[in-house]
Amino acid sequence: MFKAELSDSNILKTSFDAISSIVDEVQIQTDSEGMRLDALDRSHITFVHLELKASLFDEYVCDVPEKINIDTDEFMRVLKRAKSQDRVLMSVDDNNFIITFEGDATRTFKIRLIDIEYDNPTPPQIDHPTSFKVRFSILKDSINDIDIFSDKIALEVDEDYFIASADGDFGDASIKYLHGENINEHVKSLFSLEKIREMLKADKFSEEAEIRLGSDMPLSLILNMVTGDGNLSFLLAPRLESDE
Amino acid sequence: MFKAELSDSNILKTSFDAISSIVDEVQIQTDSEGMRLDALDRSHITFVHLELKASLFDEYVCDVPEKINIDTDEFMRVLKRAKSQDRVLMSVDDNNFIITFEGDATRTFKIRLIDIEYDNPTPPQIDHPTSFKVRFSILKDSINDIDIFSDKIALEVDEDYFIASADGDFGDASIKYLHGENINEHVKSLFSLEKIREMLKADKFSEEAEIRLGSDMPLSLILNMVTGDGNLSFLLAPRLESDE
Amino acid sequence: MFKAELSDSNILKTSFDAISSIVDEVQIQTDSEGMRLDALDRSHITFVHLELKASLFDEYVCDVPEKINIDTDEFMRVLKRAKSQDRVLMSVDDNNFIITFEGDATRTFKIRLIDIEYDNPTPPQIDHPTSFKVRFSILKDSINDIDIFSDKIALEVDEDYFIASADGDFGDASIKYLHGENINEHVKSLFSLEKIREMLKADKFSEEAEIRLGSDMPLSLILNMVTGDGNLSFLLAPRLESDE
Repeated sequence: MFKAELSDSNILKTSFDAISSIVDEVQIQTDSEGMRLDALDRSHITFVHLELKASLFDEYVCDVPEKINIDTDEFMRVLKRAKSQDRVLMSVDDNNFIITFEGDATRTFKIRLIDIEYDNPTPPQIDHPTSFKVRFSILKDSINDIDIFSDKIALEVDEDYFIASADGDFGDASIKYLHGENINEHVKSLFSLEKIREMLKADKFSEEAEIRLGSDMPLSLILNMVTGDGNLSFLLAPRLESDE
Repeated sequence: MFKAELSDSNILKTSFDAISSIVDEVQIQTDSEGMRLDALDRSHITFVHLELKASLFDEYVCDVPEKINIDTDEFMRVLKRAKSQDRVLMSVDDNNFIITFEGDATRTFKIRLIDIEYDNPTPPQIDHPTSFKVRFSILKDSINDIDIFSDKIALEVDEDYFIASADGDFGDASIKYLHGENINEHVKSLFSLEKIREMLKADKFSEEAEIRLGSDMPLSLILNMVTGDGNLSFLLAPRLESDE
Repeated sequence: MFKAELSDSNILKTSFDAISSIVDEVQIQTDSEGMRLDALDRSHITFVHLELKASLFDEYVCDVPEKINIDTDEFMRVLKRAKSQDRVLMSVDDNNFIITFEGDATRTFKIRLIDIEYDNPTPPQIDHPTSFKVRFSILKDSINDIDIFSDKIALEVDEDYFIASADGDFGDASIKYLHGENINEHVKSLFSLEKIREMLKADKFSEEAEIRLGSDMPLSLILNMVTGDGNLSFLLAPRLESDE
């Protein structure tokens, strides 16, 4: 039996807003410690990991581990119907993932479970030379700034600055942010703007993002809840210059 | 001669927002008691009745009854241009329905009268087994919730609950609302979601809706102004299960 | 060398919102007195003139006059990325017009200069019989009101009123505004609604517009900054009745 109750739907909304734009189907795994999912997009470019600990929930019961296979778009369409003051209840029966919003009325949605053979992917272990924190708003600005001139974005960090930039035919854009961290290397990688945009839909998960970068290495973007009750992380393969 | 003056355009705006999505043309009838219209949509599924009593208006003159035949879309486009602080004046000449908004400037719109042979439909008399009140916001939530999984909505009432629900291929949705009224029957009818959506555009007419339901009977939705100065009501034919 | 620094991007945003919808390319001319541009749209219907005096800027340096030829759409896309609290810096190098927004991060955009043979047009000198001031909001309302029934707008002024009007097949609209100025003539001209809509995008330049009108003469629309630090003006050719 699995049952979880939340007083705020925003964490679910913001994380599945990003997840549903990256992968069509996921397997949510529940056990006594909480809910978890690992997924890899079809083109094997983005890996996403979500963990919501039992402590996040007002009530959480899971005596036997469950695997909940669902269509992420359907779940997102349901989550969008939550109001900020609604309590959210999640459970599962043989055929459905059941989500209930309790407010003025009780609104129950049953999303059909899907039949997927799921080899749960394991997150690649990567040893990045740099790690630093950036305000989420800086990342959002960067992709929208870059979007004027290019569909690729270079992310770069040196002793002083985190820099997002792009060269286009009609112009260049660059965003420079003084990070104030202890970094001794200068690394740079190129990424798809569109893929970064998908990840950044999770902007209400945390006000700050941890970024791990290397030269021509995947980007690791880690969002931790302030309370420590959950995290959402992404790993995005770089674009190589020869892709251009 | 017909002349009517209103200090607030919202009642007109919200009712014609619904009416113009249901019927293309209407005949507004005016007499010393007020303005009134009855209309039936082309497919004979929705009947709409609007009544605005003379007492609603700051000034109201109508010595000889008039029949004002107009295109509802044109009227709605004009009404949308009203600002909340504008006074609204309505009158009629041989060729036009004249609407004036008085604010910083005086803005006058003349909508051509149209030539329709109009057999004013009489509202069907239906004896529903149940009648109860529901907050308008509950109805709006219901159609948007149901929309995720189906284009049909079942409305149901029993001793305790008003229930809107739908079964779809990818999931189910149901909205349960404790009505707190004295109801001794359990009735249920199925309706087109789209047709209900049209009626619910009139959401600023009243915060509360009176619903009358039976089993496989038309839905009656009645909106009364708190002040008692007007009412807007709809009658919607049910969809039979064999429609599916 | 040219360098200009502004604490508020709104004047640039609002003026180029209008300018970029009228002309695709412009030549901005800078000298010690400020920035200036004159442009004529492709169909020779609208003439636009912008002047931003050196006094408008927090810092302004221009020892040698420059001609900055740019694509107005690219510039507008960059300007839209400015936040209200950002400082705006403009400069130029051999190949680029450089715009920097300074806020939480430093965001630099380089827009490629374009190669245009530019015979800078001189504004036609026209002697209008009437001149009066109108609140910008009245003009905006007028075009949106007229839009219901026509794609042409008649602008008219007499001793008492400024009147915008149109006759359409399905109805008429007219906006009457008591101008309170000393006008002794009655003049009227007809214009393209779409062309006026383009000019009115500059609605944050000034709360008031100076209008100069004649009979079947171009419309002159002049926006002056309250501080006297700049002006944006448009001259729009009339549509003759035989155009219809």
